[in-house]
Amino acid sequence: MKDLIIIGAGPAGITAGIYAARYKLDTLILSQSIGGTANEAFKIENFPGFESISGVELMKKFKENLDYLKVPIVSGVEVEKIGPLKSDINRLVDIGFQIFTNDGKSYETRALILAMGTQVRKLGLPNEEKFLGRGLTYCATCDAPLFKNKIVAVVGGSDSAVTAAIQLADIVQKVYLIYRSEIKAMPYWIEKLKTLKNLIEVSKRNVVGLKGEESLEKIVLDEPLKGQKELVVQGLFIEIGVIPSSLLAKSIGVELNERGYIVADQEQVTSTEGVFTAGDISTGSGGLRQVITACSEGAIAATSAYRYIKKRT
Amino acid sequence: MKDLIIIGAGPAGITAGIYAARYKLDTLILSQSIGGTANEAFKIENFPGFESISGVELMKKFKENLDYLKVPIVSGVEVEKIGPLKSDINRLVDIGFQIFTNDGKSYETRALILAMGTQVRKLGLPNEEKFLGRGLTYCATCDAPLFKNKIVAVVGGSDSAVTAAIQLADIVQKVYLIYRSEIKAMPYWIEKLKTLKNLIEVSKRNVVGLKGEESLEKIVLDEPLKGQKELVVQGLFIEIGVIPSSLLAKSIGVELNERGYIVADQEQVTSTEGVFTAGDISTGSGGLRQVITACSEGAIAATSAYRYIKKRT
Repeated sequence: MKDLIIIGAGPAGITAGIYAARYKLDTLILSQSIGGTANEAFKIENFPGFESISGVELMKKFKENLDYLKVPIVSGVEVEKIGPLKSDINRLVDIGFQIFTNDGKSYETRALILAMGTQVRKLGLPNEEKFLGRGLTYCATCDAPLFKNKIVAVVGGSDSAVTAAIQLADIVQKVYLIYRSEIKAMPYWIEKLKTLKNLIEVSKRNVVGLKGEESLEKIVLDEPLKGQKELVVQGLFIEIGVIPSSLLAKSIGVELNERGYIVADQEQVTSTEGVFTAGDISTGSGGLRQVITACSEGAIAATSAYRYIKKRT
Repeated sequence: MKDLIIIGAGPAGITAGIYAARYKLDTLILSQSIGGTANEAFKIENFPGFESISGVELMKKFKENLDYLKVPIVSGVEVEKIGPLKSDINRLVDIGFQIFTNDGKSYETRALILAMGTQVRKLGLPNEEKFLGRGLTYCATCDAPLFKNKIVAVVGGSDSAVTAAIQLADIVQKVYLIYRSEIKAMPYWIEKLKTLKNLIEVSKRNVVGLKGEESLEKIVLDEPLKGQKELVVQGLFIEIGVIPSSLLAKSIGVELNERGYIVADQEQVTSTEGVFTAGDISTGSGGLRQVITACSEGAIAATSAYRYIKKRT
């Protein structure tokens, strides 16, 4: 049986792994990918130690820390189920968890750190799936280079929408930035936005339809007084926020807040004994979801897991 | 008047500066040194993005972030006094703070981030000051190279004492590790300690005297049953903990905990309006005082300061 299994290998999971290694815990990281959504950041200029670096590059460096400290990681797998483990003959209470992955394997562990992050929020249109990868994308960093000299639209008003638009403006012919109410981005990005000559802001509009034969050709916007309006675009970047990947947490009774995030105290302890949490999936750091805060929460969660394990063994 | 003054330029103050720049706040950092006590870490292997790096090197990289974002910093100064500022004709309440430095200058600011960190704890022996720099030191990273092939002692049982002993063992002839009760260090360091052939552990002893003509020659240990015992050493490294540099905070009524640390909530807000805090001086991150947690607290404090300033302007 492992001391600790960390689910997720974004900044939170990786830093938890680093600290767990330093505590000499027998640790395993299970994850779908390495780097998580941090890979999608096209430019990170607020992580101390690096002036300006892409998310992909920074996550590569993070991964090197795990290799250096020899932290085992199984990536490319999805955790499907978590069950309690009660088979210790010396104890009558639960002694840990059994983790089942989608490759048919299972693992046993005393403690758990849940660091699965968030998933992108979708528009919820009936043919959204059809156009995915055919003009429609949820990751500007991944797909921007495919739209050279094209006309594209970004949906959303947050930091991620604005940075997507900035990144695209360098590459495409024209970019529409479509948002429902107002832009809620960092002043730094808003200033950059103002300098772009090929960007057109479209405020107080929703994308209500997608049209095209093989790939996306037009998007339909609502027009409060006149019905609808079509815009010709070859690309649509959806940046309307995220939802926490907390279904697994819910399945083992971990308390979530009203928006589905795992409730964490200042020591990243959850409501379920032996379960800790870190990163975007948790309510830690006053809700500021940054690479640096995720890392810190990972360090704190590993420390709490270490104290929990030492008390019981 | 500045939007924000950050006092201290360790990991917390620097990251607060990075975030403040990204929020486009008119910011100034005032500090005695750049890097703070992080400079004293001889090897950092738990900051994601760097496998293994000295504190001095990492702090140099942090400073480059400030330069890149053009964050102004006045270093080599000490803040002597903080006073309230009430002179705005449009308001009857306090509108900020006036900061006085030991070079005779003063600065005005709307908001403050206190990130002054901690100071080393001293033994409290009458002739401790006399031997400072003459064999006695509080910084292994700074002074270890001066003791090549000498006999030295380290006082303390924490992570910093143990890492000091490990660092010294590579250089000196013999190192005593003297501690009062037990070693409370990370398992990773304890394992390394066991591999050292020129290290002698001396448990359940206190250093009660210092002897020498020009420089340190002997230390006196208490011997519970037999009185005292002398050890011949040329160097003494004192690593018995730290005390928060929170006198200035106290002077403006900021709530401290029973050990003198600034009480911070999850958003690094203190009990005094317009005053935020981050890093080792604060109670943030559940008391885990690491470079990564200090950085995260700095980011959170800057975010809270930004929200505070935006509400009032």
